[in-house]
Amino acid sequence: MSAVRLGIVGCGIAMRELHYPALSELRDLFSVVGVTSRTRESAETCAALFGTESYAYDELLRRVEAVDIAVPTHLNRGLIEKALDAGVHVICEKPIAESAETGEKIVEIAERAEPVLYIAENYRHYTAYAKARELLKEIGEPEFVLYSRFQNMEKDAKYAGTGWRKEPKHIGGFLSDGGVHDVAAMRMVVGDVKRVKAFASIVRGYLGSYDTMAASLLFENGIIGNYSVSYGLYGEDLFMVSGTEGRMRIDKKAVRIEKNGGENEIRIGEEDTYKRELIDFYEVLKGKKNSLGSPEEALKDLMVIEEAVKSSECA
Amino acid sequence: MSAVRLGIVGCGIAMRELHYPALSELRDLFSVVGVTSRTRESAETCAALFGTESYAYDELLRRVEAVDIAVPTHLNRGLIEKALDAGVHVICEKPIAESAETGEKIVEIAERAEPVLYIAENYRHYTAYAKARELLKEIGEPEFVLYSRFQNMEKDAKYAGTGWRKEPKHIGGFLSDGGVHDVAAMRMVVGDVKRVKAFASIVRGYLGSYDTMAASLLFENGIIGNYSVSYGLYGEDLFMVSGTEGRMRIDKKAVRIEKNGGENEIRIGEEDTYKRELIDFYEVLKGKKNSLGSPEEALKDLMVIEEAVKSSECA
Repeated sequence: MSAVRLGIVGCGIAMRELHYPALSELRDLFSVVGVTSRTRESAETCAALFGTESYAYDELLRRVEAVDIAVPTHLNRGLIEKALDAGVHVICEKPIAESAETGEKIVEIAERAEPVLYIAENYRHYTAYAKARELLKEIGEPEFVLYSRFQNMEKDAKYAGTGWRKEPKHIGGFLSDGGVHDVAAMRMVVGDVKRVKAFASIVRGYLGSYDTMAASLLFENGIIGNYSVSYGLYGEDLFMVSGTEGRMRIDKKAVRIEKNGGENEIRIGEEDTYKRELIDFYEVLKGKKNSLGSPEEALKDLMVIEEAVKSSECA
Repeated sequence: MSAVRLGIVGCGIAMRELHYPALSELRDLFSVVGVTSRTRESAETCAALFGTESYAYDELLRRVEAVDIAVPTHLNRGLIEKALDAGVHVICEKPIAESAETGEKIVEIAERAEPVLYIAENYRHYTAYAKARELLKEIGEPEFVLYSRFQNMEKDAKYAGTGWRKEPKHIGGFLSDGGVHDVAAMRMVVGDVKRVKAFASIVRGYLGSYDTMAASLLFENGIIGNYSVSYGLYGEDLFMVSGTEGRMRIDKKAVRIEKNGGENEIRIGEEDTYKRELIDFYEVLKGKKNSLGSPEEALKDLMVIEEAVKSSECA
């Protein structure tokens, strides 16, 4: 199978630090033939990084079979639509959009389009979550989820300094930018979310929007749980599912099952999920069917965060 | 000071296993002069235990200065009112009532009455919670509370077997019976709760009502947090407050402060809070002012659980 002629769209942190290293190892699958970015400086940096030329977006679209988009979230829709209209496949960084409303439009556009739209949610590519789902019956009936993410962003943290993140047009700021990962992980393991209620707050003014949230979740299957998240406070990450016969702790590298007084650990180890999602995108382009990059799934992740943020703002 | 002539009302688990051992050590403060209980058998057991006689409630009230009430929660109001009307002081087990509505009536009755009504919420007597409150400024601005209680009740657990607990007339069953303790602890450390949203569920049918809840809290001072509780699942207890400069972990025996990469533990050790609340009640009868046994405080604890349960039942 021949390498896909790929165009790079955007040259921010995600592209430089997450996609570029993965693409460097996947030259058999993707041949980067051009880049585009909003500023000349960024376009030149990016072209130099990938060892290729920079083009205006329209021109880039004429030269490629697929684009890899990693731009400020509120720009996704316009760029996705243009690519699909031009017959170009798209892999685009999560979150799918700045709001569920726009996300729904993107899903509609993708459904009508011939080319593939693949949303890059790297959490959906961790083996640990798939493994946890597979082993869930080991803890009897799953009943409760505890999920905590505390990722304190100092004022000089790289993501905190990004202009579009400091004045976010995407709902809830970091709560959706980072939060879709958490929802994706929970949905993979325990299923879809039916309802969510939350309180959101601002701990660090410099993050531009909400940075902290306490949310209660009701899943479609009747499981309930609490999701605690902060980008302004220190704490520990936890993903635990408690069932009638035991408990499961899940992280990106392992699944631990405790029951009957014993513990069983299934180690997965380190995984490059940016590489995995690009490989999966390639295989989907070659005809493989799967839902890991499905825009509908990405929209479901975003809708949970949007409902949470809105519930916090309502009386 | 002379010992208070005390009547015992009810002879269930709380009286036999929690109050009796404490009263046995406090003979200088309380002289048990009679008991009453709903059944002849229980009254006889109780009289034998305390080495005294059993009486009808009216008769008991004529013989004592104070009563210690530990009965099914929905019976509190009638017994409290009768005692206060008879000029008898009352110490009564938490929760104050089976519903916030009845709790409010009890508060009104107590306000009008000359004798003292003291609600025995033993969690308010743990030094650790007062110490945590005092040291809270050590973690900068407190911003987030994580509170979890997983107390799996097997079918043959003593509390699970109590008739009035299996068919609870008190709101949310175990969620209020046990939950007022958790709310008391959180309120002592971080302050009053402004709003709560929750999902409640039933994991073990044999507990008679809800046994599991995921709740999100907004405190009056803007702090938010998640409260996870189950009487049907295994898990770990946690009480953590995260602030802008560090974190605090609190349990009944210690307060641990983590900040600047270091940890400082303030150990309190084991405490008999049943004894402490009885000593406090005695001192209040002798004129000391404090709010540890205040019916208003007990009502606030209950109202949080009631709002949580109701929010779960509403659309």
